Amino acid sequence: MTKHDKAVIGIDLGGTSIKFGLVSAEGNILAKVSRPSNASQGPDAVIEQIKSGVHELLKDDVRVKGIGIGAPGIVNAKKGIVENPPNLPGWGKICVSKILEKEFDKKIFVENDANAAAIGEMVFGAGKDLTSFLMVTLGTGVGGGIVIKKKIFRGDSGAAGEFGHMTIDFNGPKCNCGSRGCIEAYLGINYLTQHVASDLGRHSSSKIFELIDYNLDNLTPLIISKAAKAGDEYAISVITDAGTKLGYAISSVCNLLDITSIIVGGGVAGFGQLLFDSAKASAKERVLKSLRDKITILPAKLSNEAGILGASSLVVYND
Amino acid sequence: MTKHDKAVIGIDLGGTSIKFGLVSAEGNILAKVSRPSNASQGPDAVIEQIKSGVHELLKDDVRVKGIGIGAPGIVNAKKGIVENPPNLPGWGKICVSKILEKEFDKKIFVENDANAAAIGEMVFGAGKDLTSFLMVTLGTGVGGGIVIKKKIFRGDSGAAGEFGHMTIDFNGPKCNCGSRGCIEAYLGINYLTQHVASDLGRHSSSKIFELIDYNLDNLTPLIISKAAKAGDEYAISVITDAGTKLGYAISSVCNLLDITSIIVGGGVAGFGQLLFDSAKASAKERVLKSLRDKITILPAKLSNEAGILGASSLVVYND
Repeated sequence: MTKHDKAVIGIDLGGTSIKFGLVSAEGNILAKVSRPSNASQGPDAVIEQIKSGVHELLKDDVRVKGIGIGAPGIVNAKKGIVENPPNLPGWGKICVSKILEKEFDKKIFVENDANAAAIGEMVFGAGKDLTSFLMVTLGTGVGGGIVIKKKIFRGDSGAAGEFGHMTIDFNGPKCNCGSRGCIEAYLGINYLTQHVASDLGRHSSSKIFELIDYNLDNLTPLIISKAAKAGDEYAISVITDAGTKLGYAISSVCNLLDITSIIVGGGVAGFGQLLFDSAKASAKERVLKSLRDKITILPAKLSNEAGILGASSLVVYND
Repeated sequence: MTKHDKAVIGIDLGGTSIKFGLVSAEGNILAKVSRPSNASQGPDAVIEQIKSGVHELLKDDVRVKGIGIGAPGIVNAKKGIVENPPNLPGWGKICVSKILEKEFDKKIFVENDANAAAIGEMVFGAGKDLTSFLMVTLGTGVGGGIVIKKKIFRGDSGAAGEFGHMTIDFNGPKCNCGSRGCIEAYLGINYLTQHVASDLGRHSSSKIFELIDYNLDNLTPLIISKAAKAGDEYAISVITDAGTKLGYAISSVCNLLDITSIIVGGGVAGFGQLLFDSAKASAKERVLKSLRDKITILPAKLSNEAGILGASSLVVYND
């Protein structure tokens, strides 16, 4: 007897932990496991952890159609190579698909995690009925994935989709990438919280103070969100401003690519309706007239399990 | 006896004049004619002028493979429809390809003029050996065309490529499109000359004054270029600044699309090496590290005849 022979395995490879899911062809998570990445012990140790997690999901004679892996940084999806992923020191270039194919005798698909998130939304989520869309992930970094006519757009060297490093103000705040005014330098979690931390002094009546126990180290997007929901004017202005700026960057993409559907996920998307409304308002205000009425900005559907589901979707997408 | 049966006809449809070229399969112009557009007399009059120009090129038993038309504004290339072109009042939607097919019994290809310029460079010009590139046309407007893996990228509704309306400063100068800080609002000819005109008072020793006969109405990009070549510091700073800003917008496109080759044409590209050097320097400074060493910014090759050659190239491209 075999089980789940239409199911797939999705692996979300991170610097701290590796998350694994057994996922149905419809995108339901049937089982989950996780492993510490053991990144400091080098790539061989990480690979062993990957194998170990998959073996656990495959015990009890579970059979799957294939295994998908979402990995940070540069991924050569065609060759299945993960290159120098940030937070996995000493990695270099490793053909993960070859190693796992040998171990499990399954089809292996590897993709950059931002592209995996976009494919995940296309296959299982908010992009199911869309032909083309931009996927934006608002996390520590601001990631992007471009879907054009139901295909992920990877570009010449596989690096396409870096929405986070589009400039909205050439004189703007410095970004870790070396440029200025990248949308990531406004909306990336650390940039955003640092900006609020340094700005908060001028808003002494803000509810945020109480919510962080008067300790700026406790400041998170969730706290800002809570304060805004409690009616805090400053918190509301922070979210509105973030959405407005996001809308500026979105309008540039819409004009360049004739894309009018945008899916937004990641932690900062938890700012919710206020963020989406202000992003839509500013994008519509700025975009070319011929596209104006078509602009839709949707919340991602995969949310918390985006990593596992995005990785799983690679098998369904490539099937 | 028939002549030129491998040649094509290219038509550059403008609001003031229509230019026609008989062009060899290699991109050499064998004959040229032009007609006033007669735009104020409405679309039928314009169509008659198009027919008249083509008939002139086809006299003496000249046979051609097909006819390409580059038109301003929105073009449905698949259906051969030109929609509400700016400067051609009362046009509405006209299926130009059907009308001309009936008249000439030839294959007709219609394309937006910015895309035609990109295809022209791909088929006959600086893009011959490139797989993917961004074509930028610096004219009255700032146009763009995207070539991905040897194909023009039109987007979902055919409106893709609006490079000119990417924002580089959300607080920047107002653009005619309704947005702010679009690259067109800095580099479009009227924006650029107006900016220089209002700035010139602070540069009383500039050679520009003499070159324009102390009349600001005479200010053109060519004058600024001449002053810069004569060593005028202010004129040099204008061109360097234009190139630097162009580089900012280019770096956003490179990051988003993983494109590293950019071809720049149009009148303002006549600023020459100084413009190209500063654009390249700022794009390289701003683009993501993985793309930095690959950035090349090339001058367009079709220059003066870009309109006719771009339109002609449509026949070769679609063949």
